[in-house]
Amino acid sequence: MSISVSELPDSAITLARAEADHPHSAIVTFGPDRPLKLDAGTELSPFQIAYQTYGTLNAARSNAVLLCHALTGDQHAANINPVTGKPGWWETMVGPGKPIDTERFFIIASNVLGGCMGTTGPSSLNPATGQPYGLDLPVVTIRDMVRAQSMLIDHLGIERLLAVVGGSMGGMQVLQWAASYPERVFAAMPIATGARHSAQNIAYHEVGRQAIMADPDWRGGRYLAEGTSPRRGLSVARMAAHITYMSDSSLHRKFGRRLQDRDGHTFSFDADFQVESYLRYQGEAFVGRFDANSYLYVTRAMDYFDLAADYGGVLANAFKGTKTRFCLVSFTSDWLFPTADSRAVVHALNAAGAPVSFAEVETDKGHDAFLLEEPELFAITRGFLDSAARATGVA
Amino acid sequence: MSISVSELPDSAITLARAEADHPHSAIVTFGPDRPLKLDAGTELSPFQIAYQTYGTLNAARSNAVLLCHALTGDQHAANINPVTGKPGWWETMVGPGKPIDTERFFIIASNVLGGCMGTTGPSSLNPATGQPYGLDLPVVTIRDMVRAQSMLIDHLGIERLLAVVGGSMGGMQVLQWAASYPERVFAAMPIATGARHSAQNIAYHEVGRQAIMADPDWRGGRYLAEGTSPRRGLSVARMAAHITYMSDSSLHRKFGRRLQDRDGHTFSFDADFQVESYLRYQGEAFVGRFDANSYLYVTRAMDYFDLAADYGGVLANAFKGTKTRFCLVSFTSDWLFPTADSRAVVHALNAAGAPVSFAEVETDKGHDAFLLEEPELFAITRGFLDSAARATGVA
Repeated sequence: MSISVSELPDSAITLARAEADHPHSAIVTFGPDRPLKLDAGTELSPFQIAYQTYGTLNAARSNAVLLCHALTGDQHAANINPVTGKPGWWETMVGPGKPIDTERFFIIASNVLGGCMGTTGPSSLNPATGQPYGLDLPVVTIRDMVRAQSMLIDHLGIERLLAVVGGSMGGMQVLQWAASYPERVFAAMPIATGARHSAQNIAYHEVGRQAIMADPDWRGGRYLAEGTSPRRGLSVARMAAHITYMSDSSLHRKFGRRLQDRDGHTFSFDADFQVESYLRYQGEAFVGRFDANSYLYVTRAMDYFDLAADYGGVLANAFKGTKTRFCLVSFTSDWLFPTADSRAVVHALNAAGAPVSFAEVETDKGHDAFLLEEPELFAITRGFLDSAARATGVA
Repeated sequence: MSISVSELPDSAITLARAEADHPHSAIVTFGPDRPLKLDAGTELSPFQIAYQTYGTLNAARSNAVLLCHALTGDQHAANINPVTGKPGWWETMVGPGKPIDTERFFIIASNVLGGCMGTTGPSSLNPATGQPYGLDLPVVTIRDMVRAQSMLIDHLGIERLLAVVGGSMGGMQVLQWAASYPERVFAAMPIATGARHSAQNIAYHEVGRQAIMADPDWRGGRYLAEGTSPRRGLSVARMAAHITYMSDSSLHRKFGRRLQDRDGHTFSFDADFQVESYLRYQGEAFVGRFDANSYLYVTRAMDYFDLAADYGGVLANAFKGTKTRFCLVSFTSDWLFPTADSRAVVHALNAAGAPVSFAEVETDKGHDAFLLEEPELFAITRGFLDSAARATGVA
């Protein structure tokens, strides 16, 4: 727990770096004939999407479930992550007999556009220059991410998804899927999310971006080409963000004011408290698996997300005439996407006449609850998918 | 709103720097005969305290009110700040006819130990080396700050303070005053504070410290001697902290998702949103008036604060037999020092049999409410001080 950023082995960075172009995943590449139209007004071409699948697509191609990952997630939802060597981010949720059951469903998880795990992002090689894109990659949006995913779903020969499921930024993608492609989404499950990013959330993202861009090793975004790495800035960004993923009470329960391997205060700026040591560790571990420019791009995509804005400022219009069935989940101690954000979506869905259920789960685990052992979330997910499967004749 | 840190005039830094040793304030210097005993186990000598006073001490020396400032405050509570040129941090509260009435009370405000506005801190010259202390200054605690203040009060010839008043870290000092010198405090008013720093608050401070220490211009704390300035790190630290001083709803009310001087998203990492522009401005302005090492010291003092720990883990013991009367105030939207923190102090005071009143003020302004136009806070303060004055025969 006490390694400093500067001691992080370069090999970890190198490992992560290799995933950007040559991931340990399936890849689909879209050539010049299939450019990706971006909200920024330009086109991206060629580009690639890295993805994982679990389970088997049935003959009717009707049992596909798309998982959308959060800010720093990736396509490795339910397999060992090739960079960290740790279980996938949703291995509690996805697997044989688990709520998102790999024995029943064909589950797809792709890395988002702008990411760093194999889908085109700022650390990918720009074919025009032979150098990593850096900031030459246009800024992307949640809608761009979803547009790219729809091309992957086309490629997989799937007309309609049984369900699209995701938490946090993943939930934003779920909402965007339902708005952009209502006929392709039978059931949508946005968890711990909202239809737009709040001022406070934008503020936290801006702190993270400023921390990265303040690091001299960021080099105006050209650190990969110049052989540096803005580790310290990225680590600080992660530390600041990490606090927002937990609740005050979960931090208190986990750490309180307990000291780290010492009997008293050292009267120094060492990590005296366990919570300091934990945070430093979180920052350092993140640097080994995530690209700093990707952090800029993906946070920016979340900040720009405002679904109602694309529909004349009326969120209900985003879901007008939809036949998609929705299930929303929020967590009582989530202050990043508080229940009010989910309720606003529920109200819009009600106004649009969409079938919607909503559960607020009582937990002290904060925003991160969607990634953790949360039996009520598991039960809700299982029930919702089971119901969708029965309604569509999936065994 | 769009200046960048690097464009900040050096003159601002120079101005702030000069205050460390030669402030625009009264100073009292304690020589080798009066060393300050520190909780770190060492002594500080010589040292100086910079302070401001407002109003006139009465003949009975019974109308003195001590104001304790918060993390980044200073002694300039009710006069134009010599560095920023702006009104003092509590000019709404302190003045002729105001709740803390300069026509009635003799009001003292001193810069805290570890600060950068004239009381000995890391940017002060170390007489042993002729260079700024930097990290050679021992880490100080809230109790050390209060011990130093008690020496100032001695110097001013005041036996007993009519009241000690302060918010946030100032409130911690108020509690420490009441615990350390009960016979010297007739009335104590801790606002928006707690008897110990929570894990979440320690976590936020640690992010700020890491941001500063990650800045290569910090130079291991020797930036003043080496002629650099960790502006970027300090700016990021301030941005992260500033969010915690406001509430989600006040940020929403002030900024929402409004754009800054533009009609649409720029698809860049500029400050598109007003809240981003505001935060950058807050970070930049802070760099011009505050010392990075002081930020480390003063946040550390808050983190170490745990009043009960000095009294066998029982907070009530800190106030055993006290005759001080207390008035606590919290704010509904303050998530840094939520009402529960004040209630814990109230319970301890009840257990100690101390006279205590408590008010939770309904406001959406967050932690910063104690510094803002908050009529209910003004009324409570006026009433509490008036009652203390009447009880002690102050006109």
